[in-house]
Amino acid sequence: MRFKFPLMAIGLEVAMITLFGLFVQYETEQNIRQPPSSSNSTDVDRFFELYPLFQDVHVMIFVGFGFLMTFLKKYGFSSVGINLLIAALGLQWGTLVQGILHSHGQKIHIGIKNMINADFSTATVLISFGAVLGKISPLQMLIMTIIEIAVFAGNEHLVAEIFMATDIGASMTIHAFGAYFGLAVAGVLYRSGLRRGHDNEESVYHSDLFAMIGTLFLWIFWPSFNSAIAEAGDKEYRAVVNTYFSLAACVLTAYAFSSLVEHRGKLDMVHIQNATLAGGVAVGTCADMAIHPYISMIIGSIAGMVSVLGFKFLTPVFATKLRIHDTCGVHNLHGLPGVIGGLAGIVAVALGASDMSTPAMQAAALGSSIGIAIVGGLIAGLILKLPIWGQPSDQNCYDDSVFWEVPRWREHDHHFHEHHGHNHLEPEL
Amino acid sequence: MRFKFPLMAIGLEVAMITLFGLFVQYETEQNIRQPPSSSNSTDVDRFFELYPLFQDVHVMIFVGFGFLMTFLKKYGFSSVGINLLIAALGLQWGTLVQGILHSHGQKIHIGIKNMINADFSTATVLISFGAVLGKISPLQMLIMTIIEIAVFAGNEHLVAEIFMATDIGASMTIHAFGAYFGLAVAGVLYRSGLRRGHDNEESVYHSDLFAMIGTLFLWIFWPSFNSAIAEAGDKEYRAVVNTYFSLAACVLTAYAFSSLVEHRGKLDMVHIQNATLAGGVAVGTCADMAIHPYISMIIGSIAGMVSVLGFKFLTPVFATKLRIHDTCGVHNLHGLPGVIGGLAGIVAVALGASDMSTPAMQAAALGSSIGIAIVGGLIAGLILKLPIWGQPSDQNCYDDSVFWEVPRWREHDHHFHEHHGHNHLEPEL
Amino acid sequence: MRFKFPLMAIGLEVAMITLFGLFVQYETEQNIRQPPSSSNSTDVDRFFELYPLFQDVHVMIFVGFGFLMTFLKKYGFSSVGINLLIAALGLQWGTLVQGILHSHGQKIHIGIKNMINADFSTATVLISFGAVLGKISPLQMLIMTIIEIAVFAGNEHLVAEIFMATDIGASMTIHAFGAYFGLAVAGVLYRSGLRRGHDNEESVYHSDLFAMIGTLFLWIFWPSFNSAIAEAGDKEYRAVVNTYFSLAACVLTAYAFSSLVEHRGKLDMVHIQNATLAGGVAVGTCADMAIHPYISMIIGSIAGMVSVLGFKFLTPVFATKLRIHDTCGVHNLHGLPGVIGGLAGIVAVALGASDMSTPAMQAAALGSSIGIAIVGGLIAGLILKLPIWGQPSDQNCYDDSVFWEVPRWREHDHHFHEHHGHNHLEPEL
Repeated sequence: MRFKFPLMAIGLEVAMITLFGLFVQYETEQNIRQPPSSSNSTDVDRFFELYPLFQDVHVMIFVGFGFLMTFLKKYGFSSVGINLLIAALGLQWGTLVQGILHSHGQKIHIGIKNMINADFSTATVLISFGAVLGKISPLQMLIMTIIEIAVFAGNEHLVAEIFMATDIGASMTIHAFGAYFGLAVAGVLYRSGLRRGHDNEESVYHSDLFAMIGTLFLWIFWPSFNSAIAEAGDKEYRAVVNTYFSLAACVLTAYAFSSLVEHRGKLDMVHIQNATLAGGVAVGTCADMAIHPYISMIIGSIAGMVSVLGFKFLTPVFATKLRIHDTCGVHNLHGLPGVIGGLAGIVAVALGASDMSTPAMQAAALGSSIGIAIVGGLIAGLILKLPIWGQPSDQNCYDDSVFWEVPRWREHDHHFHEHHGHNHLEPEL
Repeated sequence: MRFKFPLMAIGLEVAMITLFGLFVQYETEQNIRQPPSSSNSTDVDRFFELYPLFQDVHVMIFVGFGFLMTFLKKYGFSSVGINLLIAALGLQWGTLVQGILHSHGQKIHIGIKNMINADFSTATVLISFGAVLGKISPLQMLIMTIIEIAVFAGNEHLVAEIFMATDIGASMTIHAFGAYFGLAVAGVLYRSGLRRGHDNEESVYHSDLFAMIGTLFLWIFWPSFNSAIAEAGDKEYRAVVNTYFSLAACVLTAYAFSSLVEHRGKLDMVHIQNATLAGGVAVGTCADMAIHPYISMIIGSIAGMVSVLGFKFLTPVFATKLRIHDTCGVHNLHGLPGVIGGLAGIVAVALGASDMSTPAMQAAALGSSIGIAIVGGLIAGLILKLPIWGQPSDQNCYDDSVFWEVPRWREHDHHFHEHHGHNHLEPEL
Repeated sequence: MRFKFPLMAIGLEVAMITLFGLFVQYETEQNIRQPPSSSNSTDVDRFFELYPLFQDVHVMIFVGFGFLMTFLKKYGFSSVGINLLIAALGLQWGTLVQGILHSHGQKIHIGIKNMINADFSTATVLISFGAVLGKISPLQMLIMTIIEIAVFAGNEHLVAEIFMATDIGASMTIHAFGAYFGLAVAGVLYRSGLRRGHDNEESVYHSDLFAMIGTLFLWIFWPSFNSAIAEAGDKEYRAVVNTYFSLAACVLTAYAFSSLVEHRGKLDMVHIQNATLAGGVAVGTCADMAIHPYISMIIGSIAGMVSVLGFKFLTPVFATKLRIHDTCGVHNLHGLPGVIGGLAGIVAVALGASDMSTPAMQAAALGSSIGIAIVGGLIAGLILKLPIWGQPSDQNCYDDSVFWEVPRWREHDHHFHEHHGHNHLEPEL
């Protein structure tokens, strides 16, 4: 049983290498069928124009998402470690499935946009990971990565190619999709044994500071996320500017509402770590449109407020009434702000901020992103519930020592004296 | 009373949105009144040429300054959290006040240099924040942000447009200005109750490591800070090269003098976290001039030495004799090296390294930056002293639990068992 | 005696400034002897094209290597602090020795490639530092930096100019060289007193998380490392793509084999921190060749596997049988993967993936990199063993308090109660 995880990882890597051998090629000048454009730039030139934006996104995926989830006191290794594992698998798989959908039977030629989109596709899984953090095993996450990215690529193709909707910062196709997919999985895998919470489901002082590393790198580079695949020129420029100001406005309302809803006007680290980013999510769909900077700031302000209110009032209801336990509160950071982004996009298109789409097509894109995510997540949840994968017991949730070698220090460390030696899995890892 | 902070934050954000609605526009090709230059590049092209440098500066502001201040054992949430809050407010306000001063009655068109300058303007507040860290409330910091950026923009306009002085890396207008403004505020808000120090005013092992995250990202990206708004071409190039070598030289003297002045030749983490950066500050004014790399290295070496000596001998004198308590030692990292930078600029201009200015104009710029900072800081301090804002009591200084929800762990955490339950403010937050 | 370190640091900085005054100049348009190329770009233009890649490498050197070594529970200050010190010295010295070797008697003109190569040259020392981490003093590291970079520059000149071999990502000239140099030093400085290990030679929970900051920034920016000095165009492009996919594949096998070789299928943080990077090292030599992405993935997969097996089975043998104690396991992260990279380069050239070299020349480059590293390391080790430098006693190994001021907190901190007050050096620091 202990061989399932390594054999699955090796098997998946062998499959990836085989598929790359069959379907993937370099981008070379010979591959460029059309004559060079008037600007005289080749694809390889364009590669290094966008490379800094790609690297910003890359930092968001591996440092941003990875550290954002280290807030739990005993689950930092898994947060940052499994984040790396599934993102590394996801970017290979995302390259393939997105490439095959777009290449119309030809070989996939790796350009900078393929690499950016590969990183993007991993973001959906990392968002969903936040909803089930601490409650499932690395092996389950490998399976979920394969399923979710395939479904994501299908929905993204539907939105972009069939509905011809616009969603440059992926409020709908990544953020709402990833959140609702994760919530559906969390619903299927609901553990009534944890309904009164778990001792490990809290932070310590320095785990909250580690999480702020994630928050800040996500916050800083979000303008690159929203503009990385925008059309060069005015649209790319506006995607940066709108996101920059939306995020700045969002910080003010996130702090204000955190203080308003908390006991004696204090701030809550969970809100600061997450709700300050909601402005980046919510401005995504219309980031490249000519909506005016002050409108971006209004969108960001609303997102910051809604996100805090979601953490305070909605997450507890989800856990108790809907039996959906959302460890990181991804519904508040990605779900609700993603829906706000989708709605803002419908309004913006209706008001003529973009002539690339129609309100109906935008609404279809929002609906399909949420609907397909929920259906996909339910199916994925049922597959992940199969006893063959193993799953941590209720007692072992949110505990690195289930998956990681315990060094000698742990015996001496006061943070870890509880539950020591009780690392049994159901049925087994 | 507990509503003052959130209502102020919301009020300020509403004001920002309103002012953006009135004064701010996108940069569009229609806005460009002059015909395209011979290099055929539009403003939007130039935007993405400078975007990587903007992002480097962005990392410095939010991760660099934020984590640099996490060295205190119980004040990490506030250091990195209030840093984010005031920088997010400051970049909106800085866009407005700098834009209005430069736009001569026209709308402000957001280009990359506006965004870089907006980030720069927040740096002054973050530097001043270091002088008062742990002693004032988030509400007071919002007020200080609004006042200081307005004064900064006025002085910067005076230096650049009236004196026509050159200060490409802002040794005078940001570093010296921010330090002396902060020291003046700290002087007005001096608490005799803290003259024998405070139990919380010390680091723990991992808080010092968190601070090194800030130090390193500041150190790494400082060449971008000093070159981001330099004239394209040779000047921009020299600003990078001079800063790179000044910083490298500064590290060696900072380590050497830290070991020289400390007990038994050991190194002091405070010096390493701060004095290693002094070379970036001190080379700022003449960074883009043809001063020769070895001169940059001499400037950096002197700055590293002076900064360590300041921490060792000057900061204690300030606290006891001048009744100015400088929590982070910003006088040693930004004040003294900023003055060295200003003086180096006078000498460099006198020796003909730049024909853009005269020694007298450089001296006027240095004098106005320090003088206006002190006067502005005194006025800001008096405003911040008004009882309406609330202020932490002496006992509550340097303690996150005054402003942040205290999770359950804190009861169990040996670092926090002292003073628990004594979170009263004067008069109230 | 306590003055040796500061005086050496000051003396070296004075020497650097003097040598820069004699040999180093700015790159200016006048320095460019050839007419502008057809693409009309000057060297200064090219400077800012590569500047983002330079900054990525800069982050790897100072944050990546620095934090990667913070995994030891009591040696974080020294890991990140001495890393900064020796990299700051090394980049000045590397600029000089590499510049003099390449400038053929003319002045050294600082371009972006000089700066990238200067950062590269420090990487060799930082790799070797990992082998002796915790066992030698800052003064010894200054000496080692001067010696190793001189030897490195000689070998690099031999490989590139005499053998005309290709090694774009420096698998051989940096990674294998740095590892075998460090192992040779570690062998000479072997301490039989530590043969049963040391209480300090272990991690704590948060020190392992700090190390992951280093791992992730190295992982993210490795494509920039391997492409930064590649020929513009297809080769630069392929260096990015091959490294990106090699690293992704490497993560999967590193996790799989970590789980396979560890007790009950758990993961080991040491493997995750290090072996996930082996793919970047191993693909280095042939990164810019047209080897096909799936071949990169195979190289990365093998490197991840070999690296984990090295940590598990080879490092203990080295320590006990060969009397070479490798603190960070650099042999597994840089040594073995560097050799794999060199061998892959020989095969790739033999199969015609590059016409810039021959298999024999590649083999000569691999042999010289390892051979010169070992001989240089043995000589450096003998010099470092001279009693004049001082060296921590066995008892004081891996303990920051030997070199750093111990703040008051340390008395209260349970991690540091052992050995307190026993900071004697042999003969003296």
